[in-house]
Amino acid sequence: MNGNMIVGQSGGPTAVINASVAGVFQAGKKLGIKKIYGMIHGIEGFLEERLVELHPYLDTKEGIALLKQTPSAFLGSCRYKMPKQEENREVYEKIFSLLDKYDIQWFFYIGGNDSMDTVKMLAQYAKEHKKKQRFIGIPKTIDNDLPITDHCPGYGSVAKYVATSIKEVIRDNESFGVKKPTICIVETMGRNAGWIVAAAALARGADCTGCDAIYMPERVFDVTAFLQKVKALAKTKSSVVIAVSEGVRVADGRYLSEIPNADAPVDAFGHIQNTGVAAYLAKLVQKETGLKTRTVEISSMQRAASHLASLTDVEEAYQVGFDAVLAARDGQSGVMIVLEVENREPYRALTRECDIAKIANVEKYIPDHWITEEGTYVTEEFVQYARPLIQGELPLIMEHGLPRHLRLKEI
Amino acid sequence: MNGNMIVGQSGGPTAVINASVAGVFQAGKKLGIKKIYGMIHGIEGFLEERLVELHPYLDTKEGIALLKQTPSAFLGSCRYKMPKQEENREVYEKIFSLLDKYDIQWFFYIGGNDSMDTVKMLAQYAKEHKKKQRFIGIPKTIDNDLPITDHCPGYGSVAKYVATSIKEVIRDNESFGVKKPTICIVETMGRNAGWIVAAAALARGADCTGCDAIYMPERVFDVTAFLQKVKALAKTKSSVVIAVSEGVRVADGRYLSEIPNADAPVDAFGHIQNTGVAAYLAKLVQKETGLKTRTVEISSMQRAASHLASLTDVEEAYQVGFDAVLAARDGQSGVMIVLEVENREPYRALTRECDIAKIANVEKYIPDHWITEEGTYVTEEFVQYARPLIQGELPLIMEHGLPRHLRLKEI
Repeated sequence: MNGNMIVGQSGGPTAVINASVAGVFQAGKKLGIKKIYGMIHGIEGFLEERLVELHPYLDTKEGIALLKQTPSAFLGSCRYKMPKQEENREVYEKIFSLLDKYDIQWFFYIGGNDSMDTVKMLAQYAKEHKKKQRFIGIPKTIDNDLPITDHCPGYGSVAKYVATSIKEVIRDNESFGVKKPTICIVETMGRNAGWIVAAAALARGADCTGCDAIYMPERVFDVTAFLQKVKALAKTKSSVVIAVSEGVRVADGRYLSEIPNADAPVDAFGHIQNTGVAAYLAKLVQKETGLKTRTVEISSMQRAASHLASLTDVEEAYQVGFDAVLAARDGQSGVMIVLEVENREPYRALTRECDIAKIANVEKYIPDHWITEEGTYVTEEFVQYARPLIQGELPLIMEHGLPRHLRLKEI
Repeated sequence: MNGNMIVGQSGGPTAVINASVAGVFQAGKKLGIKKIYGMIHGIEGFLEERLVELHPYLDTKEGIALLKQTPSAFLGSCRYKMPKQEENREVYEKIFSLLDKYDIQWFFYIGGNDSMDTVKMLAQYAKEHKKKQRFIGIPKTIDNDLPITDHCPGYGSVAKYVATSIKEVIRDNESFGVKKPTICIVETMGRNAGWIVAAAALARGADCTGCDAIYMPERVFDVTAFLQKVKALAKTKSSVVIAVSEGVRVADGRYLSEIPNADAPVDAFGHIQNTGVAAYLAKLVQKETGLKTRTVEISSMQRAASHLASLTDVEEAYQVGFDAVLAARDGQSGVMIVLEVENREPYRALTRECDIAKIANVEKYIPDHWITEEGTYVTEEFVQYARPLIQGELPLIMEHGLPRHLRLKEI
């Protein structure tokens, strides 16, 4: 191929989304591609002709090593909703004229469901208009909610961080409590699927009693049953730690975090109260049981914690990036690279291409039979699924006592 | 010495409080002490005769290595306020009769200000009543607020974790924001002293723009000035990250987190709103500027994150434990081991004993001249002070993809 190629990042960042950029770059370099561009802030930046040449950053071993340990989107991300052709043909024409201007033949886009929709529409347009460019999707999401692929790059690292942090928080919570029990509510991300909060189950082992309950969005949250469970636990344990997803909903479909909004008056600012789920449940427990409570909201730290990335995850994120370039070389377009696990123990995974139409805008949830009958924990099958994904650590390059990151001058 | 010795942990846990237990144990073993006991849940558990022999746990290299990477109080902690002799002589008699019963000659207590008060009172009682036992204090606190010692074991690790997490969060916050700025408010611990939040300054470097402001309890929090600063920053930057201590107060002395309580009506539970500082400020910014906000409360994770402990901190925590035993051997009692820094670059520290009466119940704040004139950042002197304390990482023993912890069967 005589032309150039480009890679962009889109959607919420992960700890390993840059490892995929590293994979794309090194595959392109191996194939002798002349110029490898990055889009600054994804397709949104590309539309403003914000491109950067990646060679000056990534041509060295150190550049690649630093990129792999840099969290969040190195190239900048965006949340751009691609319009349909019939809605806005100009956007498509702009994109393809820019691709021609920079002689870009291959287009790689790293993202989740929405981003795959963008790839699908661009590939579709190219096909219909007999454009030569090829468009390949590279999966990325901490939410692990893309279909077909066994799991998503980004999930292993958030799972490792959440499990480690909860294991540490359980220890912290256990250290007091001779006399009175303390109920600690830990909130994780995961608006629709419970994969992230389920990772709390990985903390349990010979050296950790684990969480006492895990609440996933896949099950209706029953406030009465929750309070009964907490009361029962507090009778036998001085430390109770409960993990809950930000996305749990009550029977009428409202998010748990919306309930205080509806019932409570406005706050000092004249705004409705927008309490997090953990804060809401902690108050509820205090009021109904009088027990001491504590909250831990893992917040955006969980998707940015590259200092504790899973090596398996880093390597797979790299691999899907690398193999996306090989797919383009092989003439593919409108596909996403998926991970297939041939064997879980010992772990052996490989990649293949998948028609992107099967992936865009579809969400994958925790299978029913991986959730206990009571709905407040996951089964051993989940643990066997997730454990291989959190193995290994990246040897970190440190500077001044902190992990060093690679920085794009253009941002 | 023919008798036995005991060690206990007290107050809020840290990532390295167990390294001090390791130091105490290995020094005792080196001196040939027959039995080395641990108090379960500090002096409170000791009063209930809850003791454990440490040899079965710590006699091996692996045991010591695991103990060093185990967060929170391995022996369990307590918040027990030692009564004065004249208030409750029975407590003293009970303690000394138990010491006699188990032939315990040396008593080591790892903790912060309050715990040092306990050591002081016990040493005083022993002196007055011609008891032979020796009482030595070992410093520990993430707050870094003990006087005389250059810094406290536990601080280096919380500083490293806070700086790393904020560096990652800054990256996360920067990844979007092409069009509209996002204001991210990060809340750290530190009720009275600003040492923890000041560690946010360590994130700034060639690869990180750093926080835009740091608010410490040492300065009165001016809400109007804060909002002006945010508005000004949002005009020039698409990502604004501000670190604030849970302990900041407004001019009338109230904690910032108390303000919404006073002004707002009760919530859905009939309780006053107990918003965190970050949540409060995020709402304030939203209301007054309309800017997008995000909050990160680092919560108890920051004092339990042994997975990212500072090696310097681990080694010093070990050393103060070890040297406490040597002090007892040398006939000392009623002293605490302090750290003296002979040279900051290259870093060289040593320990010495200090009369515990000079330490108990005294709090140390960030020196005035280490805070900028505007009061919203620290000077380079602080950075030079803190940077050596976050150097190095403990090589972690992992199991199933997570750091392995040592667990006391007796808890």
